[in-house]
Amino acid sequence: MDKIKIIEVKESVFANNDERAEKLRDELRATGSFLLNVMSSPGSGKTTFLTRLIKDIEDEYKIAVMEADIDGDVDAHRILNETKAEAIQLHTGGMCHLDADMVREGLDEIDPGRFDLIFLENVGNLVCPAEFDTGASMNGVILSVPEGDDKPLKYPLMFQEADVVFVSKIDVLPYFDFDLEKFKKNLQDRNPDCQVIPVSAVTGEGMEDVKAWLKKAINNWRGV
Amino acid sequence: MDKIKIIEVKESVFANNDERAEKLRDELRATGSFLLNVMSSPGSGKTTFLTRLIKDIEDEYKIAVMEADIDGDVDAHRILNETKAEAIQLHTGGMCHLDADMVREGLDEIDPGRFDLIFLENVGNLVCPAEFDTGASMNGVILSVPEGDDKPLKYPLMFQEADVVFVSKIDVLPYFDFDLEKFKKNLQDRNPDCQVIPVSAVTGEGMEDVKAWLKKAINNWRGV
Repeated sequence: MDKIKIIEVKESVFANNDERAEKLRDELRATGSFLLNVMSSPGSGKTTFLTRLIKDIEDEYKIAVMEADIDGDVDAHRILNETKAEAIQLHTGGMCHLDADMVREGLDEIDPGRFDLIFLENVGNLVCPAEFDTGASMNGVILSVPEGDDKPLKYPLMFQEADVVFVSKIDVLPYFDFDLEKFKKNLQDRNPDCQVIPVSAVTGEGMEDVKAWLKKAINNWRGV
Repeated sequence: MDKIKIIEVKESVFANNDERAEKLRDELRATGSFLLNVMSSPGSGKTTFLTRLIKDIEDEYKIAVMEADIDGDVDAHRILNETKAEAIQLHTGGMCHLDADMVREGLDEIDPGRFDLIFLENVGNLVCPAEFDTGASMNGVILSVPEGDDKPLKYPLMFQEADVVFVSKIDVLPYFDFDLEKFKKNLQDRNPDCQVIPVSAVTGEGMEDVKAWLKKAINNWRGV
């Protein structure tokens, strides 16, 4: 297997995370690099989704992935082995989230200005990552069909902070009691501007919608 | 719908959570009440599993359920409507975990000595709840098939703290790339004494094993 660079990121000692996130975002905007913070539960299929998406768009964009986990480096290996994207692994030392300075430590390793698009795969957790602005351009949440359509009721902050929700694993909709319209209502009661894109990384259904959303988001970010 | 008692629990101001958890455990042991701390990701099927299990054993044991969530009370409603168990909802006020004092606040509302068996449905999160001893008799983790067999590699502390792992939703094994033997190896490399019980709350497969495990655990707890 390829060798993965593992960065042990440390939580910031500074209390002003929001300001530090804004500063990071301004720096990214100046270089034109679009950073998408991807949040979800463990096991929602983040890495499978990203791998498929990257393969579809890697000839159009220069892409990097920062994989954040408590431990392990299986996800970074997958990205590196299956796509042309650069990938590094961030270890949080047990922390359940990333703050803006932890993200900056990762970005410093990859020289972000070289990339059009950087995916930050946040720690698998629907609670803590929503509480910290990472400095990303936008926030995407992946919710998989097996998790259930009631999740915006139980994890309101996560779904309030999302700019887009990718409803993943829609190929298994026939086997689960997941009502997409009920999910949209649960979400939009709390966050009416949030986009919802149903998708399957297995069948490819919905991937065109993801690509169209991403292209528009990157163009907006660059003021094009 | 039935009216649910909602308790807004507050994180302890005391640093000695481990001692406070031991004290709570001693008190529970003195009354013979068995408290099972159930941890999992969001959407692993905790409530569906508990509802099915309680229906199977509610004539044998007097049962209470404490549902912990950031917000909402859908789970407590389900337990109350579908079983004979008593159920209360704990709200954590955004906190990603429960400590021993938060659990005590919940127990104070139900008078635990009246029950043989109390289920604590912890906040849906594979990171933070593992860091805090709740004072429970034992820790159970639910991992659902759609989440993947690699989770012990990514969330090592959660799987180290488990006395038992219920591998749930095994009825959908044919549709997912989940290898039960690989999962057991990933788990047992870190926690060789942990029991693994594959189960489906839909088909009922494995429920007899769960009941046998629970009966033995309760008898051990009571020194029978």
